Amino acid sequence: MLIIGERINTSRKPVDQAVADRDAAYIQADVASQIDYGAHLIDVNAGSRRKSEVDDLLWLIEVIQDALPEVRLCIDSPNPKTLKAVLDQVKHPPMLNSTTGEKSRFEAMAPIIQLRACDIVALCIDDRGIPKSAEQALENARQLISDLKALGVKRENIYVDPVIQAVSTNQNAALMVLETIDRIRQEFQGVHFICGLSNISFGLPKRPLVNRAFLTLAMRAGLNAAIVDPLDKTLMATLRATAVLLGQDPWCQAYTAAFREGKLET
Amino acid sequence: MLIIGERINTSRKPVDQAVADRDAAYIQADVASQIDYGAHLIDVNAGSRRKSEVDDLLWLIEVIQDALPEVRLCIDSPNPKTLKAVLDQVKHPPMLNSTTGEKSRFEAMAPIIQLRACDIVALCIDDRGIPKSAEQALENARQLISDLKALGVKRENIYVDPVIQAVSTNQNAALMVLETIDRIRQEFQGVHFICGLSNISFGLPKRPLVNRAFLTLAMRAGLNAAIVDPLDKTLMATLRATAVLLGQDPWCQAYTAAFREGKLET
Repeated sequence: MLIIGERINTSRKPVDQAVADRDAAYIQADVASQIDYGAHLIDVNAGSRRKSEVDDLLWLIEVIQDALPEVRLCIDSPNPKTLKAVLDQVKHPPMLNSTTGEKSRFEAMAPIIQLRACDIVALCIDDRGIPKSAEQALENARQLISDLKALGVKRENIYVDPVIQAVSTNQNAALMVLETIDRIRQEFQGVHFICGLSNISFGLPKRPLVNRAFLTLAMRAGLNAAIVDPLDKTLMATLRATAVLLGQDPWCQAYTAAFREGKLET
Repeated sequence: MLIIGERINTSRKPVDQAVADRDAAYIQADVASQIDYGAHLIDVNAGSRRKSEVDDLLWLIEVIQDALPEVRLCIDSPNPKTLKAVLDQVKHPPMLNSTTGEKSRFEAMAPIIQLRACDIVALCIDDRGIPKSAEQALENARQLISDLKALGVKRENIYVDPVIQAVSTNQNAALMVLETIDRIRQEFQGVHFICGLSNISFGLPKRPLVNRAFLTLAMRAGLNAAIVDPLDKTLMATLRATAVLLGQDPWCQAYTAAFREGKLET
């Protein structure tokens, strides 16, 4: 299970402040703790600071890579121009978050994707909008995988995001995602699956409960990457317990190690 | 999801003491709170008090039914003679916990099962012992369902228990159970599935984490009854959140009601 740490996002107030103040120490300490708690990649998102997004991202990339030269980054922006502007500053092969099947967005992303080897987050959205059925999500995924292949992207570098909707407004939302992952996985062996979790619980009380149960269900369906807060000990504990149950943690090694390090919270 | 409250078990010290003291008020208050927290049936087990098991069960059944005449009971003993001795004192159709496919145990249970309409917990164990594969569990289930049918038991009164083993000693234990439930469910529509949860986490630290994730996975596979402590707010919250995600809680009504009553704990 690939963990992408989501904390370096300027929609979070302390991060926005640190970026505004060019407080490198704050950012570096946060990233170090995300890695300590199990993040394999660090998502970097300055989308809330529209006017300075590119400059802010360039600064973030620099200060993170200065302190932690081994870290892999997930560059997160809905704006292809932003992704293009920062791409060559990323030391290790980046994850690009994200492209979609929307015609204009995909066309803008295509030349960027060809600039260097990347992992690509591909959202199952096309010009019809968010899929209304697993069938429609599968159609979107087929098209995206085919179009990315035409650009030379290998299957194992594609991270399909089935697009999570709120279960409070659509009772079928979680089941649809589970079915989508299951069907794409069977049709396109080797492709990866990724999602943010928290949309699923939008509008409900005690959202972490729903997010955790959904993570467990999605891992069973085949989710193998997640954008999460690695410092959320209970969510991470759920992830580690689920990995044990799914036979993904031989001899429960990661689980018991996390326990010994005080990182498992019930 | 059928909740069987597991607290009235003399292996729990305060219950053992209450039974020894014939403290009816303690038992009645405990049962009332289990029902308040969502139990549909109350499991009653005095198996740890071997010498007086029958007398103790008769007393428990009487004091529970006196205070709560509507309550349904699950009579829990590995000893068919015990089940027989108390059977006609149970007011509503009881659940009998349990029979197995072991020849001598099934033969002892058969005449009891025919005495009155009951729900039957059927453990997938035969004379070879605990199943070593989903295939073997499925064989046991087929035999049990066929033998119970021959006794006149309807499919919807059968609660198959796939028998949970510890994932700490068998990495495949949870996956085997999930596959077993899934396959029996497809082959025998209408049959129910039940299990205790806590065996799965035996030998691991922070067991509730593993139990909760397993409950979520088992519900997805088709588990529709569980023997749990309904006062374990976090486990019950996981159950309710999972029901929301699986489309089993229309408009999230049960989830939001539990929240309003302060019964959802993260």
